[in-house]
Amino acid sequence: MSARSSPDGRAGERARLGVAVLGSTGSIGRQALDVLESLSDRFRVVALAGGTNARVLAEQTARFRPRAIALAAEAGRTALDLPVGTDRIVEDDALEVLASRDDVDLVVIGTGGVVSLRPVLAALRAGKIVATANKETLVAGGHLVMPVARERAAAVAAETPADPFASPLAWLRPIDSEHSAIWQCLAGEPMAGVASLILTASGGPFLDTPRDELARVRPEQALRHPTWSMGAKITIDSATLANKGLEVIEAHWLYDVAYDAIDVIVHPQSVVHSAVRFVDGSLKAQLGTPDMRLPIQYALTYPDRLPSPAQPPDLIAVGRLDFRAPDEVRFPALRIAREAGRLGPRASAALIAADDVAVARFLAGDLDFMGIPRLLEAAVERFGESGRAVATDPPDAGPDLDELMELDITVRATFASGPIGDIA
Amino acid sequence: MSARSSPDGRAGERARLGVAVLGSTGSIGRQALDVLESLSDRFRVVALAGGTNARVLAEQTARFRPRAIALAAEAGRTALDLPVGTDRIVEDDALEVLASRDDVDLVVIGTGGVVSLRPVLAALRAGKIVATANKETLVAGGHLVMPVARERAAAVAAETPADPFASPLAWLRPIDSEHSAIWQCLAGEPMAGVASLILTASGGPFLDTPRDELARVRPEQALRHPTWSMGAKITIDSATLANKGLEVIEAHWLYDVAYDAIDVIVHPQSVVHSAVRFVDGSLKAQLGTPDMRLPIQYALTYPDRLPSPAQPPDLIAVGRLDFRAPDEVRFPALRIAREAGRLGPRASAALIAADDVAVARFLAGDLDFMGIPRLLEAAVERFGESGRAVATDPPDAGPDLDELMELDITVRATFASGPIGDIA
Repeated sequence: MSARSSPDGRAGERARLGVAVLGSTGSIGRQALDVLESLSDRFRVVALAGGTNARVLAEQTARFRPRAIALAAEAGRTALDLPVGTDRIVEDDALEVLASRDDVDLVVIGTGGVVSLRPVLAALRAGKIVATANKETLVAGGHLVMPVARERAAAVAAETPADPFASPLAWLRPIDSEHSAIWQCLAGEPMAGVASLILTASGGPFLDTPRDELARVRPEQALRHPTWSMGAKITIDSATLANKGLEVIEAHWLYDVAYDAIDVIVHPQSVVHSAVRFVDGSLKAQLGTPDMRLPIQYALTYPDRLPSPAQPPDLIAVGRLDFRAPDEVRFPALRIAREAGRLGPRASAALIAADDVAVARFLAGDLDFMGIPRLLEAAVERFGESGRAVATDPPDAGPDLDELMELDITVRATFASGPIGDIA
Repeated sequence: MSARSSPDGRAGERARLGVAVLGSTGSIGRQALDVLESLSDRFRVVALAGGTNARVLAEQTARFRPRAIALAAEAGRTALDLPVGTDRIVEDDALEVLASRDDVDLVVIGTGGVVSLRPVLAALRAGKIVATANKETLVAGGHLVMPVARERAAAVAAETPADPFASPLAWLRPIDSEHSAIWQCLAGEPMAGVASLILTASGGPFLDTPRDELARVRPEQALRHPTWSMGAKITIDSATLANKGLEVIEAHWLYDVAYDAIDVIVHPQSVVHSAVRFVDGSLKAQLGTPDMRLPIQYALTYPDRLPSPAQPPDLIAVGRLDFRAPDEVRFPALRIAREAGRLGPRASAALIAADDVAVARFLAGDLDFMGIPRLLEAAVERFGESGRAVATDPPDAGPDLDELMELDITVRATFASGPIGDIA
């Protein structure tokens, strides 16, 4: 079966796409499976990889009867009662094996961490479509994954330039609501017409908190996100705007747009998910309710749209939409992320690893709120493109997978404890 | 030369498109010529048709050196000093002759009235692209023009379904800012994914005027439009919401969407020009500053976008966007237009002719403000689908061009003077 749905195809005329869901027991994975179940005339779940939750994976396996499943290493030997026809993959490279199976057309990446780059690259190289919610895919590995996605797009463009699959986005699909919004605004738009991207930020729970109070913010205050119900890590990232900073880096790689042309705008209602400004002065925005099933489904059905349980936004009920500039003095993570992005893949990879450590330390009471951006800045300064000649011949292509893994471990170890000033 | 620009073409690789501008001395015509002049590497103005302003047409002729020009009938014999290489067309069907010339690829319709249907149909039948600002094209003639545009699109789709020219909108292009907004939101989106259209209305100068005061509104008050600087007719139409009602009918024909799926929403800032709601719960909106050069240029360059002097909207400077439901009690023209649309082409044609008369009478002090919707309702009741059998065999295809012209004259004569109650 081809990984490409025919752009003019009708549901009844084509075979179902085979889907592998990696991280199926997590939040994105579970929602992806709900969407896939509702679209079972178009998709067949052929592979599942769970984390350590063997019980949930067993339930999912009974529900979807995939051909292969895997559990993460720590839980890899847990006993599982599998139906006939479902194989269990226990090799260390199980995610790569599942992502590049012959019967898989599309891989949903719901796993976290830089390790997810291995199955992403394996899938892309095997000609699969990748729909990813994993931030490291682009923040740390944009220089590795985008060339493969562009190669796939170019092969289609050589034959039919107007084909929806003649775009790298058709091969590496964002699940994040902001990047899905930009992607939706770019449908049918030649990239030459794009002037800049506008990422919206809710502003988080401390949008109007004075700077001197921010240092005293406690974890339980930061965990109250005004518009989206999310996990602890992403909620803190949203409060520091580090999340938005990481999205700027992702946007740079996904859309091949310069950092100067990626704007962030605070929009407290979170109804406008993001927007694109075109060279003719036109602006297109995508709006929605805060429901991850919408971007997940679009990443599955592109270029088509199918009915979804996600409610459309009601502009009259909302009444008004507000916009203001982000305050990079009170929320320096945005500025630090831009700097990291400009420095290159090592700085970005150090940033995203450091943010994991910083948020964990803040949640544990081991770092104050303004210590998060201080730690990020220290990490970018210390690890960003360090230890390399200014110019290399041939030009440095950026860190490979092994170097990224190593850098990730080093950054985490370096900042795991102790005062930041001393470390930096 | 082919009327189609290659969808993947680069400016340097293709010949310039030949353009005829009908109504070149009017507001849309002049702005279209400014845009065409700024894009002279892509377009060549080969034909101009002016109204009665011989002086302006002479200036435009000297500036663009078109191959053929025409003046409207009344001014048809005015002496014009023409450059060598420019022919003057003096036949009664000059607009149709210009619109279907071999060297014309795209026709801009900046002329008013139901008479504009003749050159629109002539151009479409000759395989030209039509970019129209003429409301009668779709309100009165949607049933005549859309089948031709759909035929052109189907011919392209049969070869390459994902081609940007495989859409009727590529052949009959709206210049109106609201319809351009919807068209822009539909780029790259299969129509099967569209749930509904959302037309935005500024609400006009009487958005918050109580009903009993509306009857006493005088022309000079109604002519103060809050956000767009426009002519007197369209400003009054915007104050009564008749304009939005006509746009609902246009949207029905252009996008082949049922009346129940075309919503109107009041948005006083006029920054969101219109929006599309998709079946998956996603909503896409196009935003811009009030500058007609933007929709004119998009109608010329589709599917590409090129730099334009139109300023992009600054969401941070605007600060907030408001939305509310339209009040169809105080502004009944919206409801009347929907009814006319549902009744069919004769009712819609009667509505648009009657609106011309009603606004002229209001401006002349011969009709109060609330008399405008009363006159519209009387016209729709009296002329909408009247004099016809309820069912015909074969089914009634709607009025042809001659019947539309005749209906237009009759409606105007009927309501030209006298109390509306007496007439209806």
